[in-house]
Amino acid sequence: MTEFPSFVEIREEGPREGFQIETGAISTARKIELIDALSQTGVSEIQAVSFVNPKRVPGMADAGEVVKHIALREGVRYTALCLNAKGVERAVTYPQLDIYGSLITSASEKFLLKNQGINLRQNIDVQREMAGIYMSNSLPMERIAVMAAFGCNFQGEISSRQVIDGINEMISLAGELGIDPRIISLADTMAWATPLTIKQTVGAVRERFPDHKLVLHLHDTRGMAIANAYAGLEMGIDMFDSAVGGLGGCPFAAHSGAAGNICTEDLVFMLHEMGIETGIDLEALIEVAALAEDIVGHPLPGSVKTGGSLRALRANAA
Amino acid sequence: MTEFPSFVEIREEGPREGFQIETGAISTARKIELIDALSQTGVSEIQAVSFVNPKRVPGMADAGEVVKHIALREGVRYTALCLNAKGVERAVTYPQLDIYGSLITSASEKFLLKNQGINLRQNIDVQREMAGIYMSNSLPMERIAVMAAFGCNFQGEISSRQVIDGINEMISLAGELGIDPRIISLADTMAWATPLTIKQTVGAVRERFPDHKLVLHLHDTRGMAIANAYAGLEMGIDMFDSAVGGLGGCPFAAHSGAAGNICTEDLVFMLHEMGIETGIDLEALIEVAALAEDIVGHPLPGSVKTGGSLRALRANAA
Repeated sequence: MTEFPSFVEIREEGPREGFQIETGAISTARKIELIDALSQTGVSEIQAVSFVNPKRVPGMADAGEVVKHIALREGVRYTALCLNAKGVERAVTYPQLDIYGSLITSASEKFLLKNQGINLRQNIDVQREMAGIYMSNSLPMERIAVMAAFGCNFQGEISSRQVIDGINEMISLAGELGIDPRIISLADTMAWATPLTIKQTVGAVRERFPDHKLVLHLHDTRGMAIANAYAGLEMGIDMFDSAVGGLGGCPFAAHSGAAGNICTEDLVFMLHEMGIETGIDLEALIEVAALAEDIVGHPLPGSVKTGGSLRALRANAA
Repeated sequence: MTEFPSFVEIREEGPREGFQIETGAISTARKIELIDALSQTGVSEIQAVSFVNPKRVPGMADAGEVVKHIALREGVRYTALCLNAKGVERAVTYPQLDIYGSLITSASEKFLLKNQGINLRQNIDVQREMAGIYMSNSLPMERIAVMAAFGCNFQGEISSRQVIDGINEMISLAGELGIDPRIISLADTMAWATPLTIKQTVGAVRERFPDHKLVLHLHDTRGMAIANAYAGLEMGIDMFDSAVGGLGGCPFAAHSGAAGNICTEDLVFMLHEMGIETGIDLEALIEVAALAEDIVGHPLPGSVKTGGSLRALRANAA
């Protein structure tokens, strides 16, 4: 039988993912309510907001107000996503946040071109510039992040060779900058992964970079996220990004309303049932998922919040 | 890397599951429409209806009318679920159907008691009687089916020992009856399974009964079905029951509206993407899932019908 990790670390991205993509207006107070509820569940990291152009992402216009009023809880790291210099400069003005940067690349050049209008070469310059901004603000560069690591709507199949090449470029850039990000994040940005490609790519990356910690950022657009997480566990992955209730969505799906990020409580349910610790209180997390649904005003994709955990059933059966 | 089966057989149970549990009335014509659409997808077996007490399951009162008007397609086996003598006797009057029986037990005695008001001993008598009815109608007994094989809302954890004991009792009964069902179906009736328990129980059953074919009947109430199917594939399972769109539901979930059976098109998506054949046209199946949603008049849980397959994306990317 496979050896699974005994503890899995989860970075909760629900607030940022959710507020960013929801079309209905969510009040600042309710955003804070969700973040504070999450902080009570034992989650160790919450990506609370993003600092982005409010004209492009109106749901994040109040990011600063949200951050200012978080009821900070010890042991919880509150982070934010920043996509440009201005974002970082706004973010650093909030001492509530513990910001870190990532060197971001894409295993698919076509995705970069479509999504950001730059090629891989130009992206190195963009990443160099962004890293410079983080570093000049004394912020750590913790991750190398690879988008489209398992397939791409514009480029098709992605080989583990392409993923490794992208990581190598970022490691070269890191060397040039005198930094050494220890975490490599592999993102299934457009939900092409299956358990098979997870195992193949994670295996190849692990073999090439045995001393880095690998993180999976999975999307559930085609219902594969939990199976893909399981395949990751079989490969020893012990760190995942996820979103409570499955908050967020997927702009690349065939139809609007498709699921986005892997659902935190479904992932935690699987982990706990398999004897893997997370430090998270699943029952509390399920309540937060219900709260998230109430806040966004429509059903969210997660299953365990509807199906229920097994705790009460187990207690009654005993 | 694990060796997966090269071909997986799928028994489509969507029509029976769906018509049985949906609260809104579905016209006979639309039931037939769904079955006929499914028969065009390459599915080799369709459980079309159940013959049950129309007072208890009004949605199946027209089962005979449905069966009579199926546009029979060569190569497709149309079956029905019968839970008592009267059901079998009704079913055999329809030459359209290719009925077979199962010796059904439960790994949880408490489930049997709660659900059917009988204990394991009494169940043997019930199964003997039901087998007699099948056999006197010259119908084959093809399966041994174990309900609650991975956990039970009333009994809690289920060990592989309890599953094996149940199978052994049914094999003894089969011997007494002079029959030899070659298929053992393990059902996660109340959605307690994780990939870990799938591997443990399937492994134990396979070791004890190496010459039987194992089938998984998975429920997605807690979002684990696809991951559980994947774990089954890793154990060499090459036969699954499933329901298009995730039709059906789960009367044992914490909240109504929870998912029931594993969704056929999500399963087929994973299989095809992993290079495993099913004989099914995924694109046609996705259209049937949309049809099923139209017929029941509310969203169904499957993901691929919203997220889309990768075929068009792949073609465009090439």
